[in-house]
Amino acid sequence: MIRVAILGATGYTALELIKILLRHPEVKITALTTRQDGSPHVSSIHQSLTGRLDIRCEDLSPAQVTERADFVFCALPHVASMDVIPALLDGGCRVCDLSADYRLHDAAVYEKWYGHKHTDVDRLATTIYGLPELWSEKIPGQKLIANPGCYTSTSILALAPLLKGGWIEPTGIIIDAKSGVSGAGRTPKLNTLFSECNEGVSAYSVGYAHRHVPEIEQVLSDSSGRPVEIIFTPHLIPMDRGIIATCYGRLTKPATEAELLAAMREFYAGKPFIRVVNHLPSTKDSAHTNFCDITVRVARGQAIVIACLDNLIKGASGVAVQNFNLMCGFPETTALLP
Amino acid sequence: MIRVAILGATGYTALELIKILLRHPEVKITALTTRQDGSPHVSSIHQSLTGRLDIRCEDLSPAQVTERADFVFCALPHVASMDVIPALLDGGCRVCDLSADYRLHDAAVYEKWYGHKHTDVDRLATTIYGLPELWSEKIPGQKLIANPGCYTSTSILALAPLLKGGWIEPTGIIIDAKSGVSGAGRTPKLNTLFSECNEGVSAYSVGYAHRHVPEIEQVLSDSSGRPVEIIFTPHLIPMDRGIIATCYGRLTKPATEAELLAAMREFYAGKPFIRVVNHLPSTKDSAHTNFCDITVRVARGQAIVIACLDNLIKGASGVAVQNFNLMCGFPETTALLP
Amino acid sequence: MIRVAILGATGYTALELIKILLRHPEVKITALTTRQDGSPHVSSIHQSLTGRLDIRCEDLSPAQVTERADFVFCALPHVASMDVIPALLDGGCRVCDLSADYRLHDAAVYEKWYGHKHTDVDRLATTIYGLPELWSEKIPGQKLIANPGCYTSTSILALAPLLKGGWIEPTGIIIDAKSGVSGAGRTPKLNTLFSECNEGVSAYSVGYAHRHVPEIEQVLSDSSGRPVEIIFTPHLIPMDRGIIATCYGRLTKPATEAELLAAMREFYAGKPFIRVVNHLPSTKDSAHTNFCDITVRVARGQAIVIACLDNLIKGASGVAVQNFNLMCGFPETTALLP
Amino acid sequence: MIRVAILGATGYTALELIKILLRHPEVKITALTTRQDGSPHVSSIHQSLTGRLDIRCEDLSPAQVTERADFVFCALPHVASMDVIPALLDGGCRVCDLSADYRLHDAAVYEKWYGHKHTDVDRLATTIYGLPELWSEKIPGQKLIANPGCYTSTSILALAPLLKGGWIEPTGIIIDAKSGVSGAGRTPKLNTLFSECNEGVSAYSVGYAHRHVPEIEQVLSDSSGRPVEIIFTPHLIPMDRGIIATCYGRLTKPATEAELLAAMREFYAGKPFIRVVNHLPSTKDSAHTNFCDITVRVARGQAIVIACLDNLIKGASGVAVQNFNLMCGFPETTALLP
Repeated sequence: MIRVAILGATGYTALELIKILLRHPEVKITALTTRQDGSPHVSSIHQSLTGRLDIRCEDLSPAQVTERADFVFCALPHVASMDVIPALLDGGCRVCDLSADYRLHDAAVYEKWYGHKHTDVDRLATTIYGLPELWSEKIPGQKLIANPGCYTSTSILALAPLLKGGWIEPTGIIIDAKSGVSGAGRTPKLNTLFSECNEGVSAYSVGYAHRHVPEIEQVLSDSSGRPVEIIFTPHLIPMDRGIIATCYGRLTKPATEAELLAAMREFYAGKPFIRVVNHLPSTKDSAHTNFCDITVRVARGQAIVIACLDNLIKGASGVAVQNFNLMCGFPETTALLP
Repeated sequence: MIRVAILGATGYTALELIKILLRHPEVKITALTTRQDGSPHVSSIHQSLTGRLDIRCEDLSPAQVTERADFVFCALPHVASMDVIPALLDGGCRVCDLSADYRLHDAAVYEKWYGHKHTDVDRLATTIYGLPELWSEKIPGQKLIANPGCYTSTSILALAPLLKGGWIEPTGIIIDAKSGVSGAGRTPKLNTLFSECNEGVSAYSVGYAHRHVPEIEQVLSDSSGRPVEIIFTPHLIPMDRGIIATCYGRLTKPATEAELLAAMREFYAGKPFIRVVNHLPSTKDSAHTNFCDITVRVARGQAIVIACLDNLIKGASGVAVQNFNLMCGFPETTALLP
Repeated sequence: MIRVAILGATGYTALELIKILLRHPEVKITALTTRQDGSPHVSSIHQSLTGRLDIRCEDLSPAQVTERADFVFCALPHVASMDVIPALLDGGCRVCDLSADYRLHDAAVYEKWYGHKHTDVDRLATTIYGLPELWSEKIPGQKLIANPGCYTSTSILALAPLLKGGWIEPTGIIIDAKSGVSGAGRTPKLNTLFSECNEGVSAYSVGYAHRHVPEIEQVLSDSSGRPVEIIFTPHLIPMDRGIIATCYGRLTKPATEAELLAAMREFYAGKPFIRVVNHLPSTKDSAHTNFCDITVRVARGQAIVIACLDNLIKGASGVAVQNFNLMCGFPETTALLP
Repeated sequence: MIRVAILGATGYTALELIKILLRHPEVKITALTTRQDGSPHVSSIHQSLTGRLDIRCEDLSPAQVTERADFVFCALPHVASMDVIPALLDGGCRVCDLSADYRLHDAAVYEKWYGHKHTDVDRLATTIYGLPELWSEKIPGQKLIANPGCYTSTSILALAPLLKGGWIEPTGIIIDAKSGVSGAGRTPKLNTLFSECNEGVSAYSVGYAHRHVPEIEQVLSDSSGRPVEIIFTPHLIPMDRGIIATCYGRLTKPATEAELLAAMREFYAGKPFIRVVNHLPSTKDSAHTNFCDITVRVARGQAIVIACLDNLIKGASGVAVQNFNLMCGFPETTALLP
């Protein structure tokens, strides 16, 4: 039985993580943290957990966490994560970091996009990016994994096969992505109020402006071996959860849908959470699951790849448990299927 | 042309008020207030007003308001309203107060429910409650009108006819009300985040606990001439706007639906915004209008009265303009129909 | 391993049933039925099942079903259910009927509310109503169980403890219920179109008019030993799933919330899916689970009991699997927790 | 006073048309048609019109319509429109056709995309496409106007200025569009049920597959004088109304956002319903109005143009009244502003 701590237990990501881990036969949740006063019971923060988990959320130091836990899911904001992760690792914990702090290899890129100097540069350069469908063989031995962002996973899973196979040009790629509101977090803000979001769609961070852009480009470049350039436009959709990425890439040569689907199926052979489908998927099909549904169409020299996943599960907490399973030697699908 | 000021211009109520007043041929909006720094343009606070109204929201004193305006809609929170209204009246403005500060006659009741000592007790006792369907004849001469609450209007319009006519018992009345989220205002709070409200319904302030209870009881008692006692249960519904009140009252004698509908139609004869309907109304039928739809059914000795209205219009800003029209001698429906 | 058939596999109830049963270690789904032509693959009817279940939906006779299955979940419409259930039982299958056909004891009551003569009157009179929280001890030996309706379960679970304990009067009870749209089924109808439901709430079947009324009254009367009379008002809410019932009953004697909560907790002691909570629950807390959350408040001589559950799970398919588990001797929570 | 008929009065487009025309000082609605039996009152089809319009929906022949009306809004499905429009015109009516039947110049293109031979080919070739922002000067003298499709208007209004000005390449344009569900009409279908759409986004008609593609290309080509080629991907969004088109075009030369915004503002100078905005618009900003909000961003050699409008108003019934106003010599904004 692995003793697990979750840092930053009040958000939606942590809630999903808890629900998944409650189904995991090899896990005992032994610590939850928050900076809120008074060590509130987890069920007072997440009413849906009433009667399911009897533990308080406490303001714990890294040292206290390492005493109680073997494995830490770090769901803290960026910067806060790199402030504690070195101590957690030094204390003997393995860590899956759900923040952006260890995703980019290059400290200068990190500083440019996140506005903070990186304080753990050596580790940054070597931490494995935890997208098991690309690098499942690199994850098992790791002490620290950088868990992917939700837009990032959707975009990369959509495009990696065709880029790797040389089917589409690596530049001029357009990713038009649409996300449910839970992706914006649980901190009260005007733009995520019900009455602001409901009955409305809008784009945000348009242009070369969203922090997931360098992450997507780095991973797709690493994966395909060529420098990839994208235009990424995120939209906020009046739904709770789900992301759909509609991606446009210029074909390098004439190709049929059947050929592209076959290439995708080959790329993802043996990957239990990728469903390459013939139909046009809805985000609803993969909601509340760890699946990612992908398909492709061809028109006028472009491949149009569409990928859907649940932003809180396959886009955050589900893939985190996938990484946990691989790091700890459990079957990859434990607690995630069926 | 009447020069109009709106105090507290950043909320949803003010936005609806502005949209209605832009259609009013006798109104010029000359002042909007906010405590936000920097005198933001109204279109930076309400993007939907871009190109429709060229004015800034300023932090104005009552004296500055009285210089610029003849009529003031006060959309400030309670307590803040009574802090400025005496000065506005002394300065010669007429005022429609959308807060709760002048709705209750009794300062002790106000203090009990709002937790503040009332500072304008004499005026409190004499201010007319601005529900034109009950007291349209009292409104024309007034300098100050207390505009009703949204749950209150829905409940009162549903029950007043049957109580006045003696068809139902004045005690043991149950009002089970359901409101869209815009009724909770535009200040960011956890419980009105999209991801908290969406795909969920919950009751709140259950028991003798919601501030609209004394308001409903006072007006129904005044209107019917008998002390009325209710149990009121509000619910939050995952929609932007609309309120439905499902009201249960014990019949004092056997009665048919046809008799009750006829009594309601007689009570509301000549009232342009009340539609006594045979069908079961949806809140959607009256959304974005100043109508209130009402019907009744009879079962097992109970009258079940159902009323629907748009909480921001008939429940707030529309009825405020109705009051404005009556106070200023314009036709009651100006800017509200068609 | 029990071979399971689901009759009427195209609806939302069947989809949830399949998802739950895929997690059940003792179940193999061996037959799905539909009247659609061409034996469509289940994943073409329910896209979310792509890659999860490889079976076709066929137009099978009862004899064909009994050959393939040991246990049948019957998710057919009423009347259609009683047309096939006798043959299924004769063929040796055990059956959980999710329709209304075996819920009411009295054939005359059935005919009055459903407009059809009952064709299996003897079995109707003796079939156990499958609400395990009331009668778990009667379920194990049964060949046929009548699975409860969703409004019914919510209302009964809310009111049974206080009625049984004599805390509230058995007549004059008001149940004001609100349901998500999935409760209305998957057959295209005008009133369940997105653009009709969204941004609207309405009541329907108001008065003594909804088919769940006799069912609620029968079970509460049986359970409490006194004839219970209710007024039931269902409302359609713009959300996918979830029911909340706000119930009003006159106290027979003064009582505190603490006393009533204690009585409820005692009544439901040892029941794994009932959470008697102190807070006011949202339907969202129990969405996608088999839990029912219940609380109570007291005001002006009335107990206000509020119960929430997921209409498709605890209100239909989850409780069906609970019944299946009890009928087959599996732990009650198998596939339903965690 | 112009006597107006609306053919096909049961849909959402007709409902919006009626609501707008009720505000028009020069219009009297004298005929509504439906193929439903029994000449239902309009308020039994559209509950929200109760008390607002006293007229029945009848199954009228073109001859009966021409007797009662001077102007006809034809909201029939395609094919049905061209079956009656010649007779309406011969009978002396002016017509605004909201179907697709007179939008494409070329009968062969019509037949390819709509699967029917066109039966009024000469008129097809010469009918003016009713997008007043492009061709307001051609509309006044017309007897028949082809009212644009909703996706079409959004896409064209977004792209016409930059194409006309030569700022972007005419080929390789990507239009990623997102629409509320009301755009799919009021006929009950599985894919527009609340429980299918809610909490989900999906693309449809992906590739060279949606009927609005040839319409968009024809109008943009006509407007810019160059053959335009697009890739168009529509998505269904869980909201009632609103369309956002996110359009990507390769810049022909380096350009700043300020230059592009200035070009757009010049193109739309004097157009009362186009708001070229600096901020990123939400569909909510223009919901329930006849405005279209447009902005642009530049990234990596691409112009990203975003346009929002209300699909039922500016995308259908509002622009139809704009066309009506221009055809009849009324101010363009009558009944549409404020």
